[in-house]
Amino acid sequence: MYIVKIGGSVITEKSRYRKMRENVISRLADEFIPEDSILIHGAGSFGHYIADKFNLNDGLGDSNRIEYARVALDLQELNSAIIRALIEREKPAITIPVHSFHMVGEEFPHRRFKDYMERGIVPVTYGDVVLDPRKGMGICSGDQIAFHLSKALRPDKVIFVTDVDGIYDRNPKIYGDAKLLGEVSGKEKLNFSGTVPDVTGSMEGKLRVMRAIAKLGIEVMVINGLVRGRLRRAMRGEDVKGTRVLA
Amino acid sequence: MYIVKIGGSVITEKSRYRKMRENVISRLADEFIPEDSILIHGAGSFGHYIADKFNLNDGLGDSNRIEYARVALDLQELNSAIIRALIEREKPAITIPVHSFHMVGEEFPHRRFKDYMERGIVPVTYGDVVLDPRKGMGICSGDQIAFHLSKALRPDKVIFVTDVDGIYDRNPKIYGDAKLLGEVSGKEKLNFSGTVPDVTGSMEGKLRVMRAIAKLGIEVMVINGLVRGRLRRAMRGEDVKGTRVLA
Repeated sequence: MYIVKIGGSVITEKSRYRKMRENVISRLADEFIPEDSILIHGAGSFGHYIADKFNLNDGLGDSNRIEYARVALDLQELNSAIIRALIEREKPAITIPVHSFHMVGEEFPHRRFKDYMERGIVPVTYGDVVLDPRKGMGICSGDQIAFHLSKALRPDKVIFVTDVDGIYDRNPKIYGDAKLLGEVSGKEKLNFSGTVPDVTGSMEGKLRVMRAIAKLGIEVMVINGLVRGRLRRAMRGEDVKGTRVLA
Repeated sequence: MYIVKIGGSVITEKSRYRKMRENVISRLADEFIPEDSILIHGAGSFGHYIADKFNLNDGLGDSNRIEYARVALDLQELNSAIIRALIEREKPAITIPVHSFHMVGEEFPHRRFKDYMERGIVPVTYGDVVLDPRKGMGICSGDQIAFHLSKALRPDKVIFVTDVDGIYDRNPKIYGDAKLLGEVSGKEKLNFSGTVPDVTGSMEGKLRVMRAIAKLGIEVMVINGLVRGRLRRAMRGEDVKGTRVLA
């Protein structure tokens, strides 16, 4: 069993509100192997614009109630596009939005994910707004969902699909001499300067989640989804350029 | 607290696959009063075409797996249009698709509906495909959901919004002299001949659900959603043309 988390920066243009990369979505839908897999996708520019502007991470207030609803709908529409791409390729997939069943602090309900996998249907979920008992509403990132589902379902492998080749010793978008790391464990000193934390957390935070999954004894890979064939090869269990994250 | 169930024949053209009535959706979104309300919508031509053609009511098989996914996606897109119409009118609404949290035979989980109402956000759900322990997958109609939620949450009133003025003594689409009934109880002999049962059941079945809700001591109204102002007036508690369904 595999969990595939596709980052929002892969499937959307992060700098333009609600702008999908339709060709990337189509190609990744081609490469995705539906058997015994869960797909999680990020929000990219369908989520972060409004979430940042109206501080949706800080909780529900009278002035941002409509914005929670708007982000949830934007994400639902991004999700529809991804599911449509899968269905067009005869890969049955169905949405399980976190906001529809989860409350922060409660155990993450994972039973429905299993139910669909058992029926040969890919459960697809995404970083989403979520009920929160303390602050009313909040945000649950795709990375957090990957952790919750990994803990409950113990997949063989979790593949993080990003817009770079893997994890570098420094930010490759700034430093031309950044070196791709074949493996990352708790020991490396990484330089995350120049990466901008967004509402779902910093690059450091994302790596923390990956390590937490690796600690469960699960293989964790970071690969580049903008390069043709990498997702397919990783899902086939073949060797592929990227970073293996160790506990 | 109100539950409003809008029939698929109101918001879609039942004879054309995936054809919305956008002007009706906009007007009903105008009339809908979001405070302490749940909205349920039917599937209309977004659900019945494929559901009938591939016998989705009979359960999951290898040949119709993709069709369950396709119907779920079509419904998700219809739902997005309805939620968008509400949000454009500054009425915060969020989707809670039945397929994402429910399994036939288990108690219907209603907690999330309450959570959103408490936060001033309208929970919106719809007749949908659903997990079934016996036949793999099945269909859960909007009317059934109205019953489940009524039983759990005991609303003050359930309003069924249809494409006719209410319940008639015979099918008004066939008999010009059909008489609108101001009230229907268990005693009337109604003539349902000429009504075509669809995958979610016959007109008789729908009336059975309405009576079951009335038996809980809840007021049940059937009104015409194609006539301007009726939904608004019914939600305001004003007198409006239609049929009251008694146990």
